[in-house]
Amino acid sequence: MQYESIAAVDLGSNSFRLEVGRVVDDQIYTLDSLKDPVRLASGLLPDKSLDQASQERALIALARFGERLRGLPQDAVRAVATNALRVAKNATSFLLQAEAALGFPIEIIAGREEARLIYIGAVHSLPASDQQRLVFDIGGGSTEFIIGAGMKPLKLESLFMGCVSYSLRYFPDGLIDRRRLREAQMAAAKEVALIAHAYQQTGWGEAIGSSGTANAIAEILEQNDLNPKGMTGITRIGLDRLCALMIRYKRIDALPLQGVKSDRIPVLPGGIAIMTAILDTLGIQQVTYADGALRLGVLYDLLGRFHHHDMRTATVGHFQRRYQVESVQAKNVSKTAVEIFSDLMGLKLRSLEERERDIQFVRWAASLHEVGLSIAHSGYHKHGAYILGYADMPGFSRMDQARLALLVLCHRGKLNKVDGLAREDMAWRQILALRLAVILHRSRLESGVPELHASETVNGFTLQLPANWLEANPMTMAALRDETGIWEEAGFQLRIRATRR
Amino acid sequence: MQYESIAAVDLGSNSFRLEVGRVVDDQIYTLDSLKDPVRLASGLLPDKSLDQASQERALIALARFGERLRGLPQDAVRAVATNALRVAKNATSFLLQAEAALGFPIEIIAGREEARLIYIGAVHSLPASDQQRLVFDIGGGSTEFIIGAGMKPLKLESLFMGCVSYSLRYFPDGLIDRRRLREAQMAAAKEVALIAHAYQQTGWGEAIGSSGTANAIAEILEQNDLNPKGMTGITRIGLDRLCALMIRYKRIDALPLQGVKSDRIPVLPGGIAIMTAILDTLGIQQVTYADGALRLGVLYDLLGRFHHHDMRTATVGHFQRRYQVESVQAKNVSKTAVEIFSDLMGLKLRSLEERERDIQFVRWAASLHEVGLSIAHSGYHKHGAYILGYADMPGFSRMDQARLALLVLCHRGKLNKVDGLAREDMAWRQILALRLAVILHRSRLESGVPELHASETVNGFTLQLPANWLEANPMTMAALRDETGIWEEAGFQLRIRATRR
Repeated sequence: MQYESIAAVDLGSNSFRLEVGRVVDDQIYTLDSLKDPVRLASGLLPDKSLDQASQERALIALARFGERLRGLPQDAVRAVATNALRVAKNATSFLLQAEAALGFPIEIIAGREEARLIYIGAVHSLPASDQQRLVFDIGGGSTEFIIGAGMKPLKLESLFMGCVSYSLRYFPDGLIDRRRLREAQMAAAKEVALIAHAYQQTGWGEAIGSSGTANAIAEILEQNDLNPKGMTGITRIGLDRLCALMIRYKRIDALPLQGVKSDRIPVLPGGIAIMTAILDTLGIQQVTYADGALRLGVLYDLLGRFHHHDMRTATVGHFQRRYQVESVQAKNVSKTAVEIFSDLMGLKLRSLEERERDIQFVRWAASLHEVGLSIAHSGYHKHGAYILGYADMPGFSRMDQARLALLVLCHRGKLNKVDGLAREDMAWRQILALRLAVILHRSRLESGVPELHASETVNGFTLQLPANWLEANPMTMAALRDETGIWEEAGFQLRIRATRR
Repeated sequence: MQYESIAAVDLGSNSFRLEVGRVVDDQIYTLDSLKDPVRLASGLLPDKSLDQASQERALIALARFGERLRGLPQDAVRAVATNALRVAKNATSFLLQAEAALGFPIEIIAGREEARLIYIGAVHSLPASDQQRLVFDIGGGSTEFIIGAGMKPLKLESLFMGCVSYSLRYFPDGLIDRRRLREAQMAAAKEVALIAHAYQQTGWGEAIGSSGTANAIAEILEQNDLNPKGMTGITRIGLDRLCALMIRYKRIDALPLQGVKSDRIPVLPGGIAIMTAILDTLGIQQVTYADGALRLGVLYDLLGRFHHHDMRTATVGHFQRRYQVESVQAKNVSKTAVEIFSDLMGLKLRSLEERERDIQFVRWAASLHEVGLSIAHSGYHKHGAYILGYADMPGFSRMDQARLALLVLCHRGKLNKVDGLAREDMAWRQILALRLAVILHRSRLESGVPELHASETVNGFTLQLPANWLEANPMTMAALRDETGIWEEAGFQLRIRATRR
């Protein structure tokens, strides 16, 4: 496996960030990152020039980044500056010093170019989807809106509003009241209205928010149960509740809430006002947070290779190689597990899309069930679950990873580690299919598994296998017998039926 | 990385076991294992023939193993039978059926060959040592004694006593009293006396016990604090305490102790009697448990490549490749960390051997500090500690691995995860050396680190670096400043001194 390092520097209006990525095959994995809360936008004087203090903070940050970048070839690094430098009158003279401090050229990019890069970054951190998506990114000085299909952006816009500038303008002393919040929301709504019609014409299925403001709001809503039950990310209802609390407590730092990060406090009121205006004006009920944005987009753009296939399939293949999974064994287990799982799904009424997704998870879990062997044989299912739970897996959401980790954790050993899963949950069937397939392929032979049939019964499941095959395979027969006991403890009756012609 | 599978089958007098290993470079990692408590020795009738019931249990177990071995080439599998089949009159007729069930030839090996293989297995699971070692293995029907230097066995003996045969003979109903225990110990002591003089002439530094009995006794002594404070494994004093408890409670299953495994209960009284006799007769105060024994020896013998170098260095190299560690970066960090650590050790009075060992740990931790990056950048020090804590690392003891994991866990982030380490503990100095080296090499350049000097002060440590170098490297300077705060929280004063010529 060969890799090279590439780096993106993002001179944002709120903070400066550096990300160094390792290129592995066609994917990028973070190797190092640095962040400095420069708040460049807050140094914009009324005459639109950057004040001395903010320039100094910026130069200190860039000199540190420059040390980290030393030795990287010029074409492996791209530094981009966004809204604060787009509007600063004295940007040109500042840039000369900034480039000297960083040791690399810095581009001030246009709002649409920023939007394009954000979209690339967001898509590379999300599962593939057939639907059109709306991605928006509330930055320090501007907010980008993109509608895209797959890798292709269909609409790109950048609006002149951001969490730093709005917080400074509408909440200069940090105090929040109903009137101020309303004013800020109105101003933002007026901006969004500029694009609302055209965007609604183009249409989208899912709404995605990227970057710090969206992340901070989603964390607060989730950690404090402000969203309606069962909903994650940012919801209209949750946001209304948060606004009511802000008005009541008057200051962000007075809020009796978990998960409010101190460096977000000064820019959160403006960010929340903008978020509310976007949901209102575009009629959005729920927003999903995406990890990737401008920096990741710059890195993939540098790499110059776009992925039209499902990022998740590429990731699974890469993980098999990275953890030296025996791919023939994984393929055999996968085939049998999907066969059993398809039998078990038979009785359930589900959409084709749901079925395909559930089967996909069985396939991925089977492909990766042995990743933990790279750590040790003893307890390898636990090691595998650890890896899949924590790994940086492009294309998979945290929830996807948690599901994969559960399937791998439960593919052997007792089932008492399954917690709070309803009897009807497809995960039980996915686990059963995976366990049976692993038992049937323990000898790692290419041949081996006979005709089989699985079905669901009132109390559990039945697996039918030819009697003569079972007799010829005593290790498997003993393991299947143990398996019935394990499922009984979990409250399911598993029957192994030997069939004779 | 290429691998092939090889397998060892061990038809022991107590249990039958199968181990399938993956060969990676020159090392073997467990891929799968099966165990069946056949207790063949308990089926030996007074006329020394195996009874029908034990033969049937054995054939069932072998048929299961045979299913797992199907498809492996003949020369990738070696099945060995030990004492119970050495003594069984009807071994030949039984072997025919046994080989048919397993699908592979089975060798009945002589006691000395068994001893040779046990020694190979034990050495491959232990750190390299310059001292001669005594390895002994209490099996079901025989006990092997080996003295060896490095990979070379100097003395090989097999004595006719084992935990199954002794338990049956001296504790037939499981009842233990002072007289029975004494009788069993006397009988075993008489056996050991046959070799005691010759072995003491050859001499040894460390005494090592392998296999089930040694493991079971060590676990009981450790989990119930029966050893003298600070001592692990099997100690003379702990064993005496255990014997006193057995006499008081009369049965193993009545003992108010943790860690007594139910399948060990029937053969533990005989095993403990033999262990006591060995320590008494050979004058041993403490025995270390080794993971590897007969099966691992068979596997390495199959592999046919013996390692005269330190197994641990090979393991570290292999782990760097397995987890795609950038070896140049690891080497640079290692060099600087050892340099700093050597400065810090200056004031302490320590033997050359202790110094070399402590430096070795700094080198290994530096070589492996980035293994966690293979999982994710975020929290990679934690992922690295997880891997090093759980991995199957040939040559490293569990305690070695725990130390390595601690160093890697603490090489970045806060220090509040260090728990209960005395101020004088070398680990603090190892951690400091590693952290500073990682900070100094963050840019991953080949050049980069200037002349430096570290020293210990009354309240902590001082690091001296040239002032002009610090000024030219603002990221490093900021990181070193943060570092002083982190060490202050841990109770040490860390000073960074800028030197000028």
